[in-house]
Amino acid sequence: MDVRDAGFQGNLDADQSESQISHLALDIGGSLIKLVYFSRNKDSPIDNNKDSKDSVIEGRLNFSNFETSKINDCLEFILSKKLHLGGFRCHEAPDGDKILIKATGGGAYKFADLIKEKLGVSIEKEEEMDCLVAGANFLLKAVHQEAFTYMDGRKEFVHIDHNDLYPYLLVNIGSGVSMIKVDGDGKFERISGTSVGGGTFWGLGRLLTNCKSFDELLELSHQGNNRVIDMLVGDIYGGLDYSKIGLSSTTIASSFGKAISDNRELEDYKPEDIARSLLRMISNNIGQISYLNALRFGLKRIFFGGFFIRSHAFTMDTISVAVNFWSKGEAKAMFLRHEGFLGALGAFMSYEKCGRDDSMAHQSVQRYPVCKPIVGDKICYPLNGDLNDNGSLECSVYAV
Amino acid sequence: MDVRDAGFQGNLDADQSESQISHLALDIGGSLIKLVYFSRNKDSPIDNNKDSKDSVIEGRLNFSNFETSKINDCLEFILSKKLHLGGFRCHEAPDGDKILIKATGGGAYKFADLIKEKLGVSIEKEEEMDCLVAGANFLLKAVHQEAFTYMDGRKEFVHIDHNDLYPYLLVNIGSGVSMIKVDGDGKFERISGTSVGGGTFWGLGRLLTNCKSFDELLELSHQGNNRVIDMLVGDIYGGLDYSKIGLSSTTIASSFGKAISDNRELEDYKPEDIARSLLRMISNNIGQISYLNALRFGLKRIFFGGFFIRSHAFTMDTISVAVNFWSKGEAKAMFLRHEGFLGALGAFMSYEKCGRDDSMAHQSVQRYPVCKPIVGDKICYPLNGDLNDNGSLECSVYAV
Repeated sequence: MDVRDAGFQGNLDADQSESQISHLALDIGGSLIKLVYFSRNKDSPIDNNKDSKDSVIEGRLNFSNFETSKINDCLEFILSKKLHLGGFRCHEAPDGDKILIKATGGGAYKFADLIKEKLGVSIEKEEEMDCLVAGANFLLKAVHQEAFTYMDGRKEFVHIDHNDLYPYLLVNIGSGVSMIKVDGDGKFERISGTSVGGGTFWGLGRLLTNCKSFDELLELSHQGNNRVIDMLVGDIYGGLDYSKIGLSSTTIASSFGKAISDNRELEDYKPEDIARSLLRMISNNIGQISYLNALRFGLKRIFFGGFFIRSHAFTMDTISVAVNFWSKGEAKAMFLRHEGFLGALGAFMSYEKCGRDDSMAHQSVQRYPVCKPIVGDKICYPLNGDLNDNGSLECSVYAV
Repeated sequence: MDVRDAGFQGNLDADQSESQISHLALDIGGSLIKLVYFSRNKDSPIDNNKDSKDSVIEGRLNFSNFETSKINDCLEFILSKKLHLGGFRCHEAPDGDKILIKATGGGAYKFADLIKEKLGVSIEKEEEMDCLVAGANFLLKAVHQEAFTYMDGRKEFVHIDHNDLYPYLLVNIGSGVSMIKVDGDGKFERISGTSVGGGTFWGLGRLLTNCKSFDELLELSHQGNNRVIDMLVGDIYGGLDYSKIGLSSTTIASSFGKAISDNRELEDYKPEDIARSLLRMISNNIGQISYLNALRFGLKRIFFGGFFIRSHAFTMDTISVAVNFWSKGEAKAMFLRHEGFLGALGAFMSYEKCGRDDSMAHQSVQRYPVCKPIVGDKICYPLNGDLNDNGSLECSVYAV
């Protein structure tokens, strides 16, 4: 399948027929399951390009996600839409193993038996880092206006020169954080990571507030003031800067450092202030460790992906400020519009490796095309959007 | 004053006379106030070395600390022992400013007026980083068996070659963390830091547990199991290692990542497990950022100081493991027995700069001497020791 002429649309096509869906890929992480699947446009003929060796099918890539703890909801969603038939057929396999679904992330190992039992299909496991890199490379090369910088509330798209993309640092912020030096297609090394990631934000956030969802916590952080709980340089220096070493009075000296006070208990702090301090601590820490690793390998570009970010303005701002602060303005954080689906997209792209023996969909994944936006600069994930209703990516595929 | 022939003793001398105390120095941080003062041995004559231009006084350096929030307790302690008279006299100053006490840390600015009001002495502010470095250099050069490594429960003293000490990375873990590249006496640069430090451990720990003190939280962490709350690689991978990238199933993938579960609230977790996860997250993070900074500047030695460590076995072990893991065995974390008093010692050493116009104690601080241990390898701070009863450092001073 060759994805091209792609743009973004805000919603799934509600009346898409089940028979038009094919090529499901899963990324089953510690906290979230991400799904990518292709749906053919109703009016797209299977063979509309007789001059070409390969015909083109118009359709779209759809994105969806579920909490890993609610995997049964996810499997029911797959069954209801018959997405599980969107794998590829392996004629040599014994009965029952004929349909294989591409999946990556630790859950591809952990839940393989459950998926086989519930869906009657087998999992073809794809290596997690391979998929993250393949997904990021696809987005950076194939999708127009995918990467952008974000600072002081200003979003600026970054032009990606295909001949000057590598090397770059890919920082994928899921439950934990992986840092990958990418040197080309399939050429990469996981150089670092940190356990202080999205799972830490949501895990500590749940324990410290009454929030019922990650998004509620994120939204709350937007309204909070971290200075209530964080110990600032000015708190230690009596309101003064510590100018000799370049620390202003508002620099955070110690995250949560004011909570050491005997006079206040957890219930005396506003949840929004806690959420804000937590988000700032974690985003700043990731930005710092990312920058130090980029510096170590002389990488000029740092792309941040993973479901932690969710296009959340304050998260991106904090990461950007951290990279800017530690690099003294020499490095820039960049973000990806399809940030949360790198691994799932990579697993999806790996159908290419299955060759053309796919009697169901008659499609095969091919090299990266150039995508043109159809709906321009429409944001895929609204800041506080419904995570089960992500934007889809319009595209064309080759049918063989 | 020239400190030499020093060793460690576990307790303050209970019957030391007030008149024998001189040279008080303070380090007033965001969480703790650290005090260092010299007390003359009762039987030590002021002039016992008639052959020398300078006479030698036998005595000891005493260490004490208070929470910054309880500064009034600290000032009462100082008054009760008349330590505030242990500054130096400045005859040219107007009345009321004649006695100056050396102090460093942000509180030297914040509390200068309060100290003047309560003690009737003025603060002579010393720069915080200058003091940390001076204190560390003094300990590393002057005190035998000051630095050690700690791994898997084994403590090994490190021989410090005075001709091959510099450069090194000093990581001071107070409320926040400072990372300083030290190139010589007074030659240094603060290259990095992190806001995730001791204040974060104690602040978050207070909010998440019912602990009443930092030491209670630290002690609790000793009994806990971080695997209850941390999301391990094996939790994501169904018990398997993620061997391709060198992560074992027991590696922490996401600190506090299991707390995202809907089924358990804060009260369902044991405080000791929370304390352990918190300590591991923060120690590991500091170890990682320290190593990345050491690598950046090609520093072979990393010394960890600051009151966060408190000779706590698990803290040192986690930092050591982090440095070992990230450096692939190439770097080693080292610790200091007087870890918590670097800044206060540095402020104390700065009396040297006051010259010899000190009619009260007739002493002046001079160059670093070599210290010999008197009581051998006696640990200064017991693992769960009383923080208001720290070990003192026996020494001799020159009286002029």
